[in-house]
Amino acid sequence: MPTPDHPAILFDLDGTLVDSVYHHVLAWSDALAAVGIEMSIWRIHRRIGMSGGLFAQALARETDVPVDDSLRQELRDRHAASFKERLGSISPLPGARELLEGLTESGVPWAIATSGRMLTAGPLIEKLGLPVGDMTIVTRDQVAYAKPNPDLFEEAARRLDVPTTRCFVVGDSVWDILAARRAGALGVGLLSGGYGDRELVDAGAFRVFDDPAALKRGLFELGVRV
Amino acid sequence: MPTPDHPAILFDLDGTLVDSVYHHVLAWSDALAAVGIEMSIWRIHRRIGMSGGLFAQALARETDVPVDDSLRQELRDRHAASFKERLGSISPLPGARELLEGLTESGVPWAIATSGRMLTAGPLIEKLGLPVGDMTIVTRDQVAYAKPNPDLFEEAARRLDVPTTRCFVVGDSVWDILAARRAGALGVGLLSGGYGDRELVDAGAFRVFDDPAALKRGLFELGVRV
Repeated sequence: MPTPDHPAILFDLDGTLVDSVYHHVLAWSDALAAVGIEMSIWRIHRRIGMSGGLFAQALARETDVPVDDSLRQELRDRHAASFKERLGSISPLPGARELLEGLTESGVPWAIATSGRMLTAGPLIEKLGLPVGDMTIVTRDQVAYAKPNPDLFEEAARRLDVPTTRCFVVGDSVWDILAARRAGALGVGLLSGGYGDRELVDAGAFRVFDDPAALKRGLFELGVRV
Repeated sequence: MPTPDHPAILFDLDGTLVDSVYHHVLAWSDALAAVGIEMSIWRIHRRIGMSGGLFAQALARETDVPVDDSLRQELRDRHAASFKERLGSISPLPGARELLEGLTESGVPWAIATSGRMLTAGPLIEKLGLPVGDMTIVTRDQVAYAKPNPDLFEEAARRLDVPTTRCFVVGDSVWDILAARRAGALGVGLLSGGYGDRELVDAGAFRVFDDPAALKRGLFELGVRV
């Protein structure tokens, strides 16, 4: 008799459930400009969602500015301050709340796993308008390495008590899809973070949808029964 | 005897020479939010550089908000106001100035053709630090239709006295590449506006480069001798 298929879904946050990627991008741009580092904005965009440590390494390599711990902390603080000012104009993505509610009602386990820290992620998760106390949330503070390492998704799957190989990972960035593959999960891409379709497919996405609303309508394409 | 090959190059402005796309995106998001229209930010991003009229039509179709002339004017004014506040943090893209200077020195005719109006485009062009009086510049104010219609590039080619079929059009958006093809020119894509490589290739780009600095290094791939 075949094993029953009970998948779980692990969600990235920024650009996947909440429309916050472009605010992060300009907040990083502000932070970098304030310390005299020039980086084109599209290059920042393509790094949102990856580990801050790897971002700093890439930065140091490309700009020839040595990024030591103190500069890294300053950048992080400046980003957090600029991002906080932008919080008021950030909304959930279309269908995000309905998608999560539908999964809960159908008994499909889900969790949120973000490369962000609780300080910035918390207020965004609250915008979803769902009871935060009931959610499984893994943030950067709680694992050794962020994406594209698999730790965040592995920890989320562990808390749901589902093997990663039975999980779908839903994310808007290449880093989500790569981390999904490292975790042995299937990555599902959303365009709502501003990547192009092919960038996600080339990273190994199993399927790509516009946004959470489109994913909700297309869950059957994953074989998820709601 | 073969005809000598003297190509001209027609440049888009935002995301192609100046790092202003993400500022435009959030300025439009501000303008839409102020009149109560919700649109995901990535969808705004994918429409930057297209005709404002077509943008308004798309908006009306997707949000079921009728966009009449007065609302269109209000949106345009609000976008201009929000964009103006962001002007101070906008820089030229890496290599933009050097690329244009190199073309001038080598006698390769070039022009700027933008879907923006002179009011917003003017201050951005000044950031390039080149003598504006010597440039050939075509703005939205000067043609009947903006991109993806070919008018802007056709007018720019006319002013340079070069047939569009001997022009390369350099742009960061799908609308530039489509307008280039409608004009009978070859479109060259830049990633510096935040589109993915394949989006530009799928629209028909002849070649894709990271940004103006990379294009300068790769002009030989187009057969442009500098």
